[in-house]
Amino acid sequence: MPPESPRSDSRRYVLTLGCPDRTGIVARISTFLADLGGSIVEAAYHADADSGWFFTRQAVAASSIDIGVDELRARFAAVAAEIGPDSEWSLHDSGERKKVVLLVSKEGHCLHDLLGRAAGGELPATIEAVIGNHPDLESVTRAHGVQFHHVPFPRDPSERGPSFDALRDLVDGYSPDAVVLARFMQVLPESLCEHWSGRAINIHHSFLPSFVGARPYHQAFARGVKLIGATCHFVTAELDAGPIIEQDVIRIDHADAVADMVRQGRDIEKMVLARGLRWHLEDRVLVHGRKTVVFD
Amino acid sequence: MPPESPRSDSRRYVLTLGCPDRTGIVARISTFLADLGGSIVEAAYHADADSGWFFTRQAVAASSIDIGVDELRARFAAVAAEIGPDSEWSLHDSGERKKVVLLVSKEGHCLHDLLGRAAGGELPATIEAVIGNHPDLESVTRAHGVQFHHVPFPRDPSERGPSFDALRDLVDGYSPDAVVLARFMQVLPESLCEHWSGRAINIHHSFLPSFVGARPYHQAFARGVKLIGATCHFVTAELDAGPIIEQDVIRIDHADAVADMVRQGRDIEKMVLARGLRWHLEDRVLVHGRKTVVFD
Amino acid sequence: MPPESPRSDSRRYVLTLGCPDRTGIVARISTFLADLGGSIVEAAYHADADSGWFFTRQAVAASSIDIGVDELRARFAAVAAEIGPDSEWSLHDSGERKKVVLLVSKEGHCLHDLLGRAAGGELPATIEAVIGNHPDLESVTRAHGVQFHHVPFPRDPSERGPSFDALRDLVDGYSPDAVVLARFMQVLPESLCEHWSGRAINIHHSFLPSFVGARPYHQAFARGVKLIGATCHFVTAELDAGPIIEQDVIRIDHADAVADMVRQGRDIEKMVLARGLRWHLEDRVLVHGRKTVVFD
Amino acid sequence: MPPESPRSDSRRYVLTLGCPDRTGIVARISTFLADLGGSIVEAAYHADADSGWFFTRQAVAASSIDIGVDELRARFAAVAAEIGPDSEWSLHDSGERKKVVLLVSKEGHCLHDLLGRAAGGELPATIEAVIGNHPDLESVTRAHGVQFHHVPFPRDPSERGPSFDALRDLVDGYSPDAVVLARFMQVLPESLCEHWSGRAINIHHSFLPSFVGARPYHQAFARGVKLIGATCHFVTAELDAGPIIEQDVIRIDHADAVADMVRQGRDIEKMVLARGLRWHLEDRVLVHGRKTVVFD
Repeated sequence: MPPESPRSDSRRYVLTLGCPDRTGIVARISTFLADLGGSIVEAAYHADADSGWFFTRQAVAASSIDIGVDELRARFAAVAAEIGPDSEWSLHDSGERKKVVLLVSKEGHCLHDLLGRAAGGELPATIEAVIGNHPDLESVTRAHGVQFHHVPFPRDPSERGPSFDALRDLVDGYSPDAVVLARFMQVLPESLCEHWSGRAINIHHSFLPSFVGARPYHQAFARGVKLIGATCHFVTAELDAGPIIEQDVIRIDHADAVADMVRQGRDIEKMVLARGLRWHLEDRVLVHGRKTVVFD
Repeated sequence: MPPESPRSDSRRYVLTLGCPDRTGIVARISTFLADLGGSIVEAAYHADADSGWFFTRQAVAASSIDIGVDELRARFAAVAAEIGPDSEWSLHDSGERKKVVLLVSKEGHCLHDLLGRAAGGELPATIEAVIGNHPDLESVTRAHGVQFHHVPFPRDPSERGPSFDALRDLVDGYSPDAVVLARFMQVLPESLCEHWSGRAINIHHSFLPSFVGARPYHQAFARGVKLIGATCHFVTAELDAGPIIEQDVIRIDHADAVADMVRQGRDIEKMVLARGLRWHLEDRVLVHGRKTVVFD
Repeated sequence: MPPESPRSDSRRYVLTLGCPDRTGIVARISTFLADLGGSIVEAAYHADADSGWFFTRQAVAASSIDIGVDELRARFAAVAAEIGPDSEWSLHDSGERKKVVLLVSKEGHCLHDLLGRAAGGELPATIEAVIGNHPDLESVTRAHGVQFHHVPFPRDPSERGPSFDALRDLVDGYSPDAVVLARFMQVLPESLCEHWSGRAINIHHSFLPSFVGARPYHQAFARGVKLIGATCHFVTAELDAGPIIEQDVIRIDHADAVADMVRQGRDIEKMVLARGLRWHLEDRVLVHGRKTVVFD
Repeated sequence: MPPESPRSDSRRYVLTLGCPDRTGIVARISTFLADLGGSIVEAAYHADADSGWFFTRQAVAASSIDIGVDELRARFAAVAAEIGPDSEWSLHDSGERKKVVLLVSKEGHCLHDLLGRAAGGELPATIEAVIGNHPDLESVTRAHGVQFHHVPFPRDPSERGPSFDALRDLVDGYSPDAVVLARFMQVLPESLCEHWSGRAINIHHSFLPSFVGARPYHQAFARGVKLIGATCHFVTAELDAGPIIEQDVIRIDHADAVADMVRQGRDIEKMVLARGLRWHLEDRVLVHGRKTVVFD
């Protein structure tokens, strides 16, 4: 019987890099890692013919390298400089546990799902806190030993500024690697989109770009589509238009009313969000312009 | 071992009916059929809470009924009149073979697929003719023993009237039950949409309502979606907005260029078209307003 | 905008019936319901050519019928007797809430999922109790306000008789409509399989009939399959061979170790179990011999 | 608008290599390629924790390297020798068109599909010939301008030796890169399995390992599964047990008789075979023991 040694069960240094494509980048990086004795557990590359950009993600067994992650970062900075001034890179030690804050409203299916995954040791991060614009999901959150904050939002959109300020301060207090809008139902102001750029992740309950905005299942019902979907994407200032991380669909038919879509859609929403969040936390998602490269 | 007796291998009378919903319709129809000794092989019902409309499809073994289909139609007309003046119904004898005309351009994958299905005895209809605005697909069509007509279309859209007239005359000469735009790439004028209403079926290479119009794979590439799709729908005057019969999607990723999407999309296009066409030919698709009920 | 009136949101009388097929059954049932003024919300039929058996499920709006469910049952008994002595039928009032008992071990993902669905009002039943052969899942169960019982099972299979007796008494005390083996990991003795026949539902973590028995993901890894699956089925004396209610699969690849399959498989297990259980609770699953008819 | 530059539209040198895993292999190969100025268009790696084996596939733009493929092979042989005596590698010039021979019987759906793909320029190979144990598919083959050979097989299995000898000679005359059993329905003798090892590809009409051998749809019907599938695999001496290249499934339900499964199954068979064959022809499939690594 094979050992249960998954791709993610032991400590790793995960390097991601994006830069203008040219010959020799792979050789440079792999030689750098080989010279340190690094054992590469996962490696993925993508050269994008359209944008001329190169992307890579490499996971190295931490035990195979003698130096610490800070020293490794310092040394790789020199390699990145050689590769070019436009290169964007990160180097994460999977032993440093990532942090997540969840924003919720009244609908609990995504929250239940993520709390269940955390309880089962399946989420590669700690859920530091849950913040709701309604108090409905406080008890289930606390039952899992997670902090809950209630930040009320006024009905009048023009009066929500102080609420968003409070939200920002609360979230920033946790320095999260991911701010997850788990059916939060509030449109973030542009300033918050920029402030949390690359870290704020939303789940939209349609197969984007179909059915942007409010009540997508009602829109889907009216159009008579035969599949409904969900989209996990980074939050940007333009509504439901951020880089897409993951999407999926399920089949419906004429017998499904809007409420049936709502119920069945929950399953696809929570699955798509969980996959997208996991990939983000494992440094598998590289953003370039309006699009993502996902090394899943 | 069970017998290979599919739902569709023997002669049937297929009744479809749509009408405002009220109590007793099912009882009225089933009693009518039972009194004739009719053995119901398939029966499906749908009461649409939104529109208040009722839909049914019943397939009766022809061998179980002593009277012919014309007599059956005459007798059912009285039942339909009782049910109400708004009821729309049809009664088809599966022993009367249906007829299909295909409209094509240069892309042959849907044509190849449908010709192959016809050759394998899988299509519940005869392909009477293929009409192309280019001659490219003539030889493969003729190799299957099917007539091919070439109707050239001028570059200038304002000069295409005579071509559409010729197309209309050619198609109508076959009295087809389905006019299939198998990647025809020409937008039908409103008059033709109306003339072939309920019979003209298109395959669009996107998951509608996303990416209406030209070059949907280019649009999908630009948006960075993670699934691409195809939609089989009835043709109406509003472009790509007719009632949807069937849709499906396949997964793509960042490594797929537009040409990869084009190649992979062909598979989903031909499958979705074949399913939608089959359902239409088997009287499984009932249209109501902008939507369909599909008793598959 | 359409109303959110799903197929299941209001009170219904749900009739299911299976019997040898013959002409006139549909007419007899629908006339019976029409004479009572019954408004049929859902109706499904299946005539099985292989076994010669007929199956139907009808959901009638309770508000459309003046008599109560007991009187309705009494009157339908006469209809069923007419239809034939072999007919098996049930008539359930959706206003009488169904009851579920869950059997668990240490793996919590199916339990978390079902508790979350119950909390969200999505499960058409009450989870009366959770019984574990280990105490690990007690706290999460109690956090949802559900009773938890710990019934230890000895290591030696020959000494488990008293544990199964205790389990039986505990479960039977709740008179559940469904006994769900939510990754219970204990093989029920034949006597319990018979005692809970038609009510005990298991989730097996493979696409049956592939990989029966222990450690199916290890078996799948060794064989090198490209999809892994899960199967929800009724429990019978023969291991993993009961009538299948629902199955689904997800794609894996060469990069997935057994532990990756275990993690990803959890998602498909909980979805398949939730769907199968829901259909069972809504009287959508009719068993005939080794197979099921599912009117979903 | 992005250019239509797919992963496969221009000439490439495709290197595949499998060897015992150790540090530095990626660095060695990528340095070798970088030193030649090679522009890597696709690169994929897999380190298998279970077997301790390393796999890679690299596609280099032919135009970026000054030397020819023979010289490149000669130089890489030295690198491979350094990497270790157990390394297995190949280097293919995509400009050298691959060759395929198809073995068929009476069922034409896979043949129609592959001929259609070849006609559309979608298959990265030439179909050199089709060989049938029945003459039924001769005309459609010839209509596509492809040679057809009829090799009759006696009813008595013990008398089929000469037929298999004739088959072997015919096939070998084309030196094909792939011998495709496109629903051939004859079990190859062990000697032929070995002779065509790594090149003979079969499509089996079930989700293996379920329903090995004859009449898998009948087996699926009897078991009452809710999905049916198809498996593309390398042919080995043990029936339906060779390394799996690709699998997929479609949903069926209780209303589907065996003949319905046969019809719907054709679609999944031809799709799975087309994908598996394409990957094999593009050197994306590496075999190790009973399993495959597929760099799709």
